[in-house]
Amino acid sequence: MCAKTAYSRLVMRFSRIGHLRAIESLLFWDGQTVMPAGGAASRADQMGSLAALIHELLSAPDVQRDLETAIADSDRLEAWQQANLREMRWTWAHAHAIDDQLASDIARTSAETIECWAAAKAADDFKSFAPALQAMVDLQRRKADAKAVALGCSPYDALLDEYDPGARAAEIDRVFAVLEAFLPTFIRDCGSRAPNDASDRREPIPRERQVLLVRELLARVGYRLDDARLDEARHPFSLAFVPGDSRIAIRYDEANVMSAVTATLHEVGHAFYEANLPSAFHYQPVGYARGASMHESQSLAMDMQAGRSDGFLGFLFPLLRKTLGVSGAGWQDERLLADWRRVEPTTIRVDADEATYPLHIILRYRIERGLIDGQLRVADLPEIWRAEMQRLLGIRPATEAQGCLQDIQWAAGMFGYFPSYTLGAIKAAQFFAAARQEVADLPTHLANGDFEPWKLWLADKVHRWGSFHTDSELLRQATGSDLDVGIFQRHLEQRYGRRQA
Amino acid sequence: MCAKTAYSRLVMRFSRIGHLRAIESLLFWDGQTVMPAGGAASRADQMGSLAALIHELLSAPDVQRDLETAIADSDRLEAWQQANLREMRWTWAHAHAIDDQLASDIARTSAETIECWAAAKAADDFKSFAPALQAMVDLQRRKADAKAVALGCSPYDALLDEYDPGARAAEIDRVFAVLEAFLPTFIRDCGSRAPNDASDRREPIPRERQVLLVRELLARVGYRLDDARLDEARHPFSLAFVPGDSRIAIRYDEANVMSAVTATLHEVGHAFYEANLPSAFHYQPVGYARGASMHESQSLAMDMQAGRSDGFLGFLFPLLRKTLGVSGAGWQDERLLADWRRVEPTTIRVDADEATYPLHIILRYRIERGLIDGQLRVADLPEIWRAEMQRLLGIRPATEAQGCLQDIQWAAGMFGYFPSYTLGAIKAAQFFAAARQEVADLPTHLANGDFEPWKLWLADKVHRWGSFHTDSELLRQATGSDLDVGIFQRHLEQRYGRRQA
Repeated sequence: MCAKTAYSRLVMRFSRIGHLRAIESLLFWDGQTVMPAGGAASRADQMGSLAALIHELLSAPDVQRDLETAIADSDRLEAWQQANLREMRWTWAHAHAIDDQLASDIARTSAETIECWAAAKAADDFKSFAPALQAMVDLQRRKADAKAVALGCSPYDALLDEYDPGARAAEIDRVFAVLEAFLPTFIRDCGSRAPNDASDRREPIPRERQVLLVRELLARVGYRLDDARLDEARHPFSLAFVPGDSRIAIRYDEANVMSAVTATLHEVGHAFYEANLPSAFHYQPVGYARGASMHESQSLAMDMQAGRSDGFLGFLFPLLRKTLGVSGAGWQDERLLADWRRVEPTTIRVDADEATYPLHIILRYRIERGLIDGQLRVADLPEIWRAEMQRLLGIRPATEAQGCLQDIQWAAGMFGYFPSYTLGAIKAAQFFAAARQEVADLPTHLANGDFEPWKLWLADKVHRWGSFHTDSELLRQATGSDLDVGIFQRHLEQRYGRRQA
Repeated sequence: MCAKTAYSRLVMRFSRIGHLRAIESLLFWDGQTVMPAGGAASRADQMGSLAALIHELLSAPDVQRDLETAIADSDRLEAWQQANLREMRWTWAHAHAIDDQLASDIARTSAETIECWAAAKAADDFKSFAPALQAMVDLQRRKADAKAVALGCSPYDALLDEYDPGARAAEIDRVFAVLEAFLPTFIRDCGSRAPNDASDRREPIPRERQVLLVRELLARVGYRLDDARLDEARHPFSLAFVPGDSRIAIRYDEANVMSAVTATLHEVGHAFYEANLPSAFHYQPVGYARGASMHESQSLAMDMQAGRSDGFLGFLFPLLRKTLGVSGAGWQDERLLADWRRVEPTTIRVDADEATYPLHIILRYRIERGLIDGQLRVADLPEIWRAEMQRLLGIRPATEAQGCLQDIQWAAGMFGYFPSYTLGAIKAAQFFAAARQEVADLPTHLANGDFEPWKLWLADKVHRWGSFHTDSELLRQATGSDLDVGIFQRHLEQRYGRRQA
């Protein structure tokens, strides 16, 4: 038997790390869907040990040695192996930049901070959350500083890079400046024309009925429940990193069927990306999805681009009436369309429509950059939040719970994550525009409830490439252009800038 | 800050190992209850990596060094810490005896052998399973030989010791010889007197109705569903090693309500043991349940000792009629009692009654010892099985699926586990006999459906001690005597040797 090469040793190690990440993902799923409340403390212990183990496996001295040897020798490797090596090095660099203690402090603090945040939100009491958030910001700043040195970028860029490799604040600034100039006026114009007619009230739809509709939609889009699960959770999500085991969780709101429909298509979009990743590289760094914004683009490709297209809504509304067994005035096409296409500022991000959503992200992006750069103080957060929301959306939250306490992300330590929502929306618009050029009769397929050509295009252009390309290469290869906020802008103008039939 | 002691380093390491074992347990739960079929291959990969990691964490050179230092210094430790150290050393000795490669081969081979066994059982084809079983026996023999050297006992004793620390074949031989002399005649005598009246047929009870009954029973025995879960699985089981997160899974058979009732009480018995373990030592070796036979004794304490006592059955039968909404002739006390107390040889172990069950275990014990000692060949298994079943139970299986292919344990590599079922039954009888002496009016409490005094006695005498005592010390402390098969024998005579009202 010949001696193992450095590259093959790395493959074995990353394969084990991949298994542990899949297990992390499953523990998260369990905690969100089926775990009894009494298990929370134990789960935090288990997650802490797992995170520490993964960090140790990644930052062990042999990894650095093997990476150096393998990189020096990399002309012997095939293109996919070279890309895998590049992604291994990226993963290692992020882990190696921080020591075991900081990694484990962050993991442990996240669990505690989330608990504190949930209590503060329930009590609408920012002050009780501020010290915990300050401690989290301090940890994140230590992490960002350490990674900035290791990666040769700014501290905030280092945080962005964790979620979305290659993303940089300079480009986000450019893109967000365009949206900030365009959206407030655009939204005012849409809002003034959108009907807001409360007279045609719709009856509440019991959960069981909505489940039927969701199952019908899943069958339509080809999400097969023998390889997959559908569950209920307070926040919709899909399970990642587990080949052959796809799980989505939906929230049902009896007063709002649209939310379950949107969540279903959204989570299915994430699930399809995971399901079509290159199986030869399962559990290897190059076999994972490209990054947070690319992942978000795949979910928005389903729920926003295809799922709210004229064609699909023409198919959806009759299906919805039939499956739910409803027929009142509130359930007719025009009335449903008014809701599905409503553009209206709201204080809550997760309730926001497609056009106002980016302003919620811009608000958070500005604030989290300020916190990481040290320009903003945690104590000033509620005030800044209200002022910025007034400026961007023209409204003010009535409470902190509906203001700066609404999101879990900062409590969870996810600084640098928010921009990926809007970067993903832009990419989704670019993909849909490109596919309309290349796929014959795409709108007609969607009008027949047939997502297959759209899914196949995405699988071919995006999913099967895993992390073989960088994010910008992948976007360019799929669409022929770089990140292009103009395409997203035109998409909004076409969809919301005129009345739809 | 003072330097960490060897003992405190060990506590940290075993705590991490404990978290990984809890995660293993959760992955098992998930696989048995909710995982989509497509996830099986990924799950095997994840379990393999986890098993390998645990083995490496246990057998790393620092562990041996720290154990030696801590043991040399152990007079500084308190009694519970000393016991923890003893259990750490035991855990380490089992892991260290085999190398990483063998540990990982066994983990991987188990998953494959189980798959092969399931297919062979479905096809009733022993020949297709024989090579896989042979490979597993070879691995187990290698493991047993290595552990025998390390532990200073026979190879088969080393396997017993994994599941039931301190159990030895010499004692099992003594106990089983008594049962083998007593049971066949006893069973023949019971059988000839038991009514087997098929005229009072009972209607099938739909799953949903049985769930109501199970929930009613859980409320009665004090299994609170806010800290716990009840699920459905092909094989009943309870989740172990996860403080604050208790999960039991039951199988429902529409034709047989008794099976859900028995499984519920049985799994609840396991769950109570886990729930009452010493919380100061959660995740530490001394904080775990004592061993396989002690665990089984706690489940049998509920389903067999208390759950089939005259008093409790007098409470159960009316509850059952009321909850299920049944009233026919087949549901009257005498007819139900005849089934709950039927003694009748069957070819299937899991269907066996309390009196015939030990003979199924003796059969498997003899065969697995022969396979490990090299006295028996895998190829001869079907023939030996039939001959031994004829000798012990007076019946022969019609197929291999109902014979030597019926159990999963050998495919899973669990050689040395079977004896714990019967050792547990003996201990359960000893505990119940002791409690009847000490707890005032125990039968009356059970006749009122009140398990609390019985649970409190078990928690006080057994559960809260974790692994502080050795198995035989714990038994002696709780009951005042050593393992005593005579008490089990008298229990069977009293319950089945005369007709019950």
